[in-house]
Amino acid sequence: MTAPGINSPEEQLRYERGLGVLNAVDGGSAAGVMESLADVAPALAHHIVAFGFGDIYARPGLDPRQRQLVTLGILTALGGCEPQLEVHVRTALTVGLSTTEIVEALIHSAGYCGFPKALNAVFVAKRVFAERGLLPVQEG
Amino acid sequence: MTAPGINSPEEQLRYERGLGVLNAVDGGSAAGVMESLADVAPALAHHIVAFGFGDIYARPGLDPRQRQLVTLGILTALGGCEPQLEVHVRTALTVGLSTTEIVEALIHSAGYCGFPKALNAVFVAKRVFAERGLLPVQEG
Amino acid sequence: MTAPGINSPEEQLRYERGLGVLNAVDGGSAAGVMESLADVAPALAHHIVAFGFGDIYARPGLDPRQRQLVTLGILTALGGCEPQLEVHVRTALTVGLSTTEIVEALIHSAGYCGFPKALNAVFVAKRVFAERGLLPVQEG
Amino acid sequence: MTAPGINSPEEQLRYERGLGVLNAVDGGSAAGVMESLADVAPALAHHIVAFGFGDIYARPGLDPRQRQLVTLGILTALGGCEPQLEVHVRTALTVGLSTTEIVEALIHSAGYCGFPKALNAVFVAKRVFAERGLLPVQEG
Amino acid sequence: MTAPGINSPEEQLRYERGLGVLNAVDGGSAAGVMESLADVAPALAHHIVAFGFGDIYARPGLDPRQRQLVTLGILTALGGCEPQLEVHVRTALTVGLSTTEIVEALIHSAGYCGFPKALNAVFVAKRVFAERGLLPVQEG
Amino acid sequence: MTAPGINSPEEQLRYERGLGVLNAVDGGSAAGVMESLADVAPALAHHIVAFGFGDIYARPGLDPRQRQLVTLGILTALGGCEPQLEVHVRTALTVGLSTTEIVEALIHSAGYCGFPKALNAVFVAKRVFAERGLLPVQEG
Repeated sequence: MTAPGINSPEEQLRYERGLGVLNAVDGGSAAGVMESLADVAPALAHHIVAFGFGDIYARPGLDPRQRQLVTLGILTALGGCEPQLEVHVRTALTVGLSTTEIVEALIHSAGYCGFPKALNAVFVAKRVFAERGLLPVQEG
Repeated sequence: MTAPGINSPEEQLRYERGLGVLNAVDGGSAAGVMESLADVAPALAHHIVAFGFGDIYARPGLDPRQRQLVTLGILTALGGCEPQLEVHVRTALTVGLSTTEIVEALIHSAGYCGFPKALNAVFVAKRVFAERGLLPVQEG
Repeated sequence: MTAPGINSPEEQLRYERGLGVLNAVDGGSAAGVMESLADVAPALAHHIVAFGFGDIYARPGLDPRQRQLVTLGILTALGGCEPQLEVHVRTALTVGLSTTEIVEALIHSAGYCGFPKALNAVFVAKRVFAERGLLPVQEG
Repeated sequence: MTAPGINSPEEQLRYERGLGVLNAVDGGSAAGVMESLADVAPALAHHIVAFGFGDIYARPGLDPRQRQLVTLGILTALGGCEPQLEVHVRTALTVGLSTTEIVEALIHSAGYCGFPKALNAVFVAKRVFAERGLLPVQEG
Repeated sequence: MTAPGINSPEEQLRYERGLGVLNAVDGGSAAGVMESLADVAPALAHHIVAFGFGDIYARPGLDPRQRQLVTLGILTALGGCEPQLEVHVRTALTVGLSTTEIVEALIHSAGYCGFPKALNAVFVAKRVFAERGLLPVQEG
Repeated sequence: MTAPGINSPEEQLRYERGLGVLNAVDGGSAAGVMESLADVAPALAHHIVAFGFGDIYARPGLDPRQRQLVTLGILTALGGCEPQLEVHVRTALTVGLSTTEIVEALIHSAGYCGFPKALNAVFVAKRVFAERGLLPVQEG
């Protein structure tokens, strides 16, 4: 009744499938996170990829741009998840959300979770956009 | 330097504009909430409509279906906002998200804010879908 | 190095002191909560009274009305703490905050933690005000 | 690159493994939750069992009593997850934590996430203990 | 049914009114935040000023010192909003709360949202007080 | 009805008792935190020690390793409490939890509060383990 090791063939297959999804949507921005887990919690990296991307993200009910809108809402509302929000702003760009749509999602969030969390999220987006020369953002 | 009363002509205009947006997207599901504020905090009802819908929701950067995806993510993550989530599941249906898309957004949230909050949100959606004869939900 | 039992003379003294503070500010609204802990976690009731009220609430830096404003802000922001918010709306009235001030604190919170949590808090306040014949609330 | 359907043989195997773990630790208290997902989000039920219990809970690094202590801490801190906390208080009893240990974990949480959330959690525990004739709880 | 542009005359008027309130209470500490939004989300800056300060903060039901006590409670409870808390500790000083009152509000919060969040908030206050030569704080 | 000063003999006794508990479990990692409160909120340091450790931690219902598992769950779920989590990862090691058990508690948390908060917590643990030469962590 114990969990299969993450190196079992079945788990490696699940991992490979999730990695394909992850690579397709995030443009490599999560790779550093996964590597930094290697010496402390490799199983967490495995399950983020195998479950989070292979099992869930790959489901057909929503396309990647829709999923990123949900994710931007969640991470803004949770607060304290700026590193993950940064990865997901990059992913949002990779799957085709415009900077205008990303910022609009964060402005929209202000009414539901307050200005302070919306501000934190906008400044994460600004940092990513600045790195990529995407500032200033055009108003919607 | 004081705020204009919510009954000033300029504020009534803002309110009317917001109400037009609200009615267009929520199919009347928020009306009861607004009425129940009348004797305790009418200014809160005013500003939800005038600011939340007139100023923010009406902005062009995202369409209503996209806004509802962000909102579903936020309300699921916040937790404890089941009454508001119920209103927004109704709004999601009104603006054209399918039951499959709504449920998929909530399943998607599990990886980002955990199973317990995702479960709470799914049971809110189930209640709304049941009232409208929309069960069972087709898998995506 | 173990904690003193809550029935030790020193702890009884601390408890009595806290109970004096609690009774002075809450008008009896917490008594039911404390009693309902008697068969499951009497030590929690003891420490809420001895520490929360005897050690902290009794400190001179803020008066009870100021403390209740801070508390209304915290409980609104936390979410999911409606039973405790109900007790603290009663306490707010007992220590002399008006219904207008209480509602204004909750409207104020909307910008900082969003409309959904502000709404939840306002409906708790409405319930307490209704019981006491304090509706409608006069706008500030 | 799509997720395998939850009815695929490989997923059924994962599900069966998770179900074995779940049944061993929760004494049946989650069954109703899973059934109520059948017509709205069966995939969520599948992944809670397959991932949550089959992949994670079954890992060897902590025993079930240790896992339940972590879970009690998380659910108390999150707030608004009383239905899930109820299931996990039952699970805690099934895996061998005493009522004293469960209550102590919740009292302990007061210092880290405040009295209101600790109170909410204690009243959930009280309800479960009452159903099973386990009141009053012996102090630790 | 679209929102008026933030540069419309009516919105400029609302903005000016809000800016008057903001300048009166925050002693300039929010100006940098607003400027840094100019190239990423100018509409968010506009609405924080026009709605947050012009519509809400300017309402008569609570005076600025009372509003800051509520805000300190909210931001401490939310967690992860240290940059906004820093602005609001400055505002609290500007509107006339003493360092003793500010610290007392944060100590008071420990019982309601736990020691960790209270500690985070106290260290933000300490940083602001240190910059202004306001340490040590006199006990209440 | 005012609180006794924290320098009263009775409070000094409570403090000493709490300090004994704290020193026994945390290996000195909280000392810096307490000292840094001396000029801003010494009463908060006093009550964390006297109440948090003297009154609560010293209670007999759970042993220190069990308490740290609950605490790891709470701090991971709260989010934004990385400084306190760092202290408590050190405490967890001091009271005898292995690096494997600590990491397993954090992986376990992913299902209950989501991957982002679990990741934040794991990276805090990694930092502590790295300082002590405890990497790589052995899988459970």
